[in-house]
Amino acid sequence: MSTKDTLMHVVADHCDAAIDKVTVVGTGDVGMACAFSILAQGISSDVALIDMNENKLTGEKLDLQHGCLFLSARISAGADYAVTANSKVCIITAGVRQKEGESRLDLVQRNADVLKNIVPNLVKYSPDTILIVVTNPCDIMAWVTWKISGLPKNKVMASGTTLDSSRFRFFISEKLGVSPDSVHAWIIGEHGDSSVAVWSGVNVAGVRLKDINPKIGSDSDPENWKNIHKQVIQSAYEVIKLKGFTNWAIGLSTASIVKSILRNSNKVMPVSTCIKGVCGIENEVFLSLPCTVGRNGVTDIVELTLSEEERCYLKFSAARMMEIAAGVKL
Amino acid sequence: MSTKDTLMHVVADHCDAAIDKVTVVGTGDVGMACAFSILAQGISSDVALIDMNENKLTGEKLDLQHGCLFLSARISAGADYAVTANSKVCIITAGVRQKEGESRLDLVQRNADVLKNIVPNLVKYSPDTILIVVTNPCDIMAWVTWKISGLPKNKVMASGTTLDSSRFRFFISEKLGVSPDSVHAWIIGEHGDSSVAVWSGVNVAGVRLKDINPKIGSDSDPENWKNIHKQVIQSAYEVIKLKGFTNWAIGLSTASIVKSILRNSNKVMPVSTCIKGVCGIENEVFLSLPCTVGRNGVTDIVELTLSEEERCYLKFSAARMMEIAAGVKL
Amino acid sequence: MSTKDTLMHVVADHCDAAIDKVTVVGTGDVGMACAFSILAQGISSDVALIDMNENKLTGEKLDLQHGCLFLSARISAGADYAVTANSKVCIITAGVRQKEGESRLDLVQRNADVLKNIVPNLVKYSPDTILIVVTNPCDIMAWVTWKISGLPKNKVMASGTTLDSSRFRFFISEKLGVSPDSVHAWIIGEHGDSSVAVWSGVNVAGVRLKDINPKIGSDSDPENWKNIHKQVIQSAYEVIKLKGFTNWAIGLSTASIVKSILRNSNKVMPVSTCIKGVCGIENEVFLSLPCTVGRNGVTDIVELTLSEEERCYLKFSAARMMEIAAGVKL
Amino acid sequence: MSTKDTLMHVVADHCDAAIDKVTVVGTGDVGMACAFSILAQGISSDVALIDMNENKLTGEKLDLQHGCLFLSARISAGADYAVTANSKVCIITAGVRQKEGESRLDLVQRNADVLKNIVPNLVKYSPDTILIVVTNPCDIMAWVTWKISGLPKNKVMASGTTLDSSRFRFFISEKLGVSPDSVHAWIIGEHGDSSVAVWSGVNVAGVRLKDINPKIGSDSDPENWKNIHKQVIQSAYEVIKLKGFTNWAIGLSTASIVKSILRNSNKVMPVSTCIKGVCGIENEVFLSLPCTVGRNGVTDIVELTLSEEERCYLKFSAARMMEIAAGVKL
Repeated sequence: MSTKDTLMHVVADHCDAAIDKVTVVGTGDVGMACAFSILAQGISSDVALIDMNENKLTGEKLDLQHGCLFLSARISAGADYAVTANSKVCIITAGVRQKEGESRLDLVQRNADVLKNIVPNLVKYSPDTILIVVTNPCDIMAWVTWKISGLPKNKVMASGTTLDSSRFRFFISEKLGVSPDSVHAWIIGEHGDSSVAVWSGVNVAGVRLKDINPKIGSDSDPENWKNIHKQVIQSAYEVIKLKGFTNWAIGLSTASIVKSILRNSNKVMPVSTCIKGVCGIENEVFLSLPCTVGRNGVTDIVELTLSEEERCYLKFSAARMMEIAAGVKL
Repeated sequence: MSTKDTLMHVVADHCDAAIDKVTVVGTGDVGMACAFSILAQGISSDVALIDMNENKLTGEKLDLQHGCLFLSARISAGADYAVTANSKVCIITAGVRQKEGESRLDLVQRNADVLKNIVPNLVKYSPDTILIVVTNPCDIMAWVTWKISGLPKNKVMASGTTLDSSRFRFFISEKLGVSPDSVHAWIIGEHGDSSVAVWSGVNVAGVRLKDINPKIGSDSDPENWKNIHKQVIQSAYEVIKLKGFTNWAIGLSTASIVKSILRNSNKVMPVSTCIKGVCGIENEVFLSLPCTVGRNGVTDIVELTLSEEERCYLKFSAARMMEIAAGVKL
Repeated sequence: MSTKDTLMHVVADHCDAAIDKVTVVGTGDVGMACAFSILAQGISSDVALIDMNENKLTGEKLDLQHGCLFLSARISAGADYAVTANSKVCIITAGVRQKEGESRLDLVQRNADVLKNIVPNLVKYSPDTILIVVTNPCDIMAWVTWKISGLPKNKVMASGTTLDSSRFRFFISEKLGVSPDSVHAWIIGEHGDSSVAVWSGVNVAGVRLKDINPKIGSDSDPENWKNIHKQVIQSAYEVIKLKGFTNWAIGLSTASIVKSILRNSNKVMPVSTCIKGVCGIENEVFLSLPCTVGRNGVTDIVELTLSEEERCYLKFSAARMMEIAAGVKL
Repeated sequence: MSTKDTLMHVVADHCDAAIDKVTVVGTGDVGMACAFSILAQGISSDVALIDMNENKLTGEKLDLQHGCLFLSARISAGADYAVTANSKVCIITAGVRQKEGESRLDLVQRNADVLKNIVPNLVKYSPDTILIVVTNPCDIMAWVTWKISGLPKNKVMASGTTLDSSRFRFFISEKLGVSPDSVHAWIIGEHGDSSVAVWSGVNVAGVRLKDINPKIGSDSDPENWKNIHKQVIQSAYEVIKLKGFTNWAIGLSTASIVKSILRNSNKVMPVSTCIKGVCGIENEVFLSLPCTVGRNGVTDIVELTLSEEERCYLKFSAARMMEIAAGVKL
């Protein structure tokens, strides 16, 4: 009899179906920061990794497994999507990079083609899963994912401006000397360059900064708060220039969305969702607005009271999205 | 339109079925310490309370709800077992107290009668649940629960000597000046007075104390380590004498079992399970031995290498259990 | 040589001075809920308990120690204040209960007399500590503690309306179907019956409910949101009627303040502090307003933009506080 | 008046001296995994980063700060060691890589030269700090650091075989089907190729696998458990081959040491310390043995009961260390 059989009297089979399984597609810097944020914060006890680069995939799996003693979690990985079976949430970080001279639309098409391979496999093995798209440009990619997946719209979202809002709150918190989670401030719309800062809603303890400084966020503000939004937009470029890529903040942002889903928290978060019918948008586009996020995905969208200028920016983003979407072959 | 309807654009229904729901039956000091340990440690995000005393039940529910901001969890409570639906784990702490002059068997019968009402209702609303019995005498009560429930034996356990072992490890850790979780030591058998301390296995970093002090745990040990086991047994009586009841340590012990189940950790824990066929026991009795605990309940029992004396104690406990069990009307 | 001396080669002395030590004065239901919330949430790794009732004190100490395996913390207790030495934070929950027919002022005086014994001893052993007063009426008791302690005003506070605000946010969150921590709403002023709900600041994602429903919080509001504030005020009475006391929510509220201090978070919290010079108050009274709380205690108070009615209420509370304070013999 | 000055009424200065500050020297893959493990697990609320590559340093600082909302921590970074002031623990991950054709001793000397710049600066700004050396070869580097630092020997350690032991426990746990933290098994001696697996102490629930399978760990074992130790040694090479570097597991291992120090846990961990006088070693060398780790660093070393073969291996490693140490110019 083996050592194990002598040591252990078997009562019943072990259970493989974890209740809080999360799959991360793509083991690049962003995918691994997502996975590690989820594991180190105890958000899930069962993480599966998928990547086409099997060496990288196996290396990352082993490295995480070697630290399992400190994580109390199970790590699995494989080239076959069977390893993702029964995931409650799947995070998609896989994608190609922009080639020199490549148009934005060509890049979108190439990434859409990547998703055509990934998404049906995820849904096949986890038909009730919720999909979070992190691959950029994440708003359009979430729309593509939704179209390909056949899932109801509440079950597909992009990380959207969760990261942009986190940066925004950090910069304001530094200026005011309070904790970032005591600063309530939202970046909405498109993740990245054309994001919209909702200055009218920025508040600490319910005190709107706009009530103190009516010009806040505008060009005529002598304190130049607007610069903080510029800093938010520059952040990704700056970090990439300095260290070559961004990973920690996007990993933590995405992990916070996963947590709200798995724990059914109904937290209000700026994720990218289909915003048709809200804030004056009439098209079927994915953009970020404050959403209630829980076990059923996005269940509600907050109807922001936007200024005319903010509405314009949002409509402009929506129009641009529609245009790109129209050019994508699904 | 109401404030809510103006504020929120509905996308989909909220989901009520939490993936990590836990029910606590009984809102006395022990039940509430279990519930609060689970909530404060973030082990579950959805706790349901059940009690026949509706005032106490509602009071405890409200008090926990008033702290929800700090717990990120949902608290529900009700006299109707529908509130427990879809629980992954149910903890049973309800029971009656020994009356003056009442025999042990009469007490067991009265508590068995209480379980006859509780257990079928739990199983009705959560047919796949795992049951953890804390009500004393917990070993025999777990057997009763198993019989009543119709569940496979891996799905019913008692907290057993999890608490006794925690006390044992704390006392040894104090004597050695190291963290309790660096002391590996096990109390097995019956929870309470006739528990068995497995001195032969006590070790720090793989060094068996018995190899250093061969008389450890025996009457002839000049260092009198045996006294620590006496302290373990006296602990419950002492705490009850001093503060009227025990709650924190049993709450934390039980929460640790729940955590290993919900996170499918396969931790080895001294829970009370049906030990027929292990360590020389041939009867269908529930006693504590080190068990692997995960999403499927108790999946393995560790075959301890016991001394002749330790085996005797265990057999004696088993015989006593059989005797009591024989007298219970199910 | 003893087992320990054979097992362990001594390199250096253990360190007794923990960096995050917290003392809890009073081991009643509230004191123990504070201590347990701090321990179970991993906020401090070193908790000292003090109580005049030595039986209760020892019972609670032992019960917590028996669960140390699950807490990774050190528990100490004693009648001598030496046990509290080097605490970073001390929480005062000790106090007497109102006798039948006793005036409020007489109760205040009796509790002030209790504090005269406690506070100098705490400051003697932990001269740099921060004091959090939970004993009711906590606003006036914090003022008394400040006067007795000789500490700068930033180092003494009461839990104040932290609990009231937590209840307020929970009730609103239930009505809106979102997480309590996505509802930003503040109760200020006196903890308890004459607290002030700042309806003008209540917001979700920066959207002020008052902008949607201008009558919110007033008597003429058809949706009767005002009732939620009434519920907040009734909460303590209701829980006490149902279960005899309140403990969990006040324990969690207080623990959250301790966390912001020990981690130097600078979170904005509604603690009770000396608000002279803020929101039109000119007296040296302790009342709750949103405050930045960190390692140096209360470092900033948020200047709320209150309605005329809200200002009146606050002034009225301040005047009442002054009156009571004038009658207290320090 | 600025928006901030209008919003905030200043009561007292913010406190910069966090009680749990940790410095990480080196922002490469290992340094950042240490920093992120510490932050994401809430082990410290104040992390300072130091690196000579200012671009990388600033990039990593910004990326972490952009995620501060999810970390409740303060991140600082700078080329000047003033940023590390008052650190309770400093982790040294900086070092040069082996050049092609470079001898081991030459590498050691080059890394020792790097330490000569780092260590005095760390001690200057944090004279009471504890130093954890991760830079490889970490055992000899810890000895060098100790010599340079002038600190007592309990205050300098290397991460040592904490990672090797974590891998060992994971591989055994996989073979047995239990949680890694229910497998008690130790790798001691030199971190890396010549590490020693203490098969005689490997146990689950106090049951020594050697009592079941007396040939465990030997060449004649038909189950070939020895292979697991080989796997441990191959692990680093394998992961490096597959993904280019290792980071997660060493980050988590180091973070666990930091946690035991900051929380004064006195956990027994296999860190590398001066083992003169223990297990038959008479030289002043740094190697890993199970040690009690708390606020005062390494306070005790466990005297393992080693087999003759295990002792030989340890002595051999010690002799080799002495030889290398003799060649280093401090």
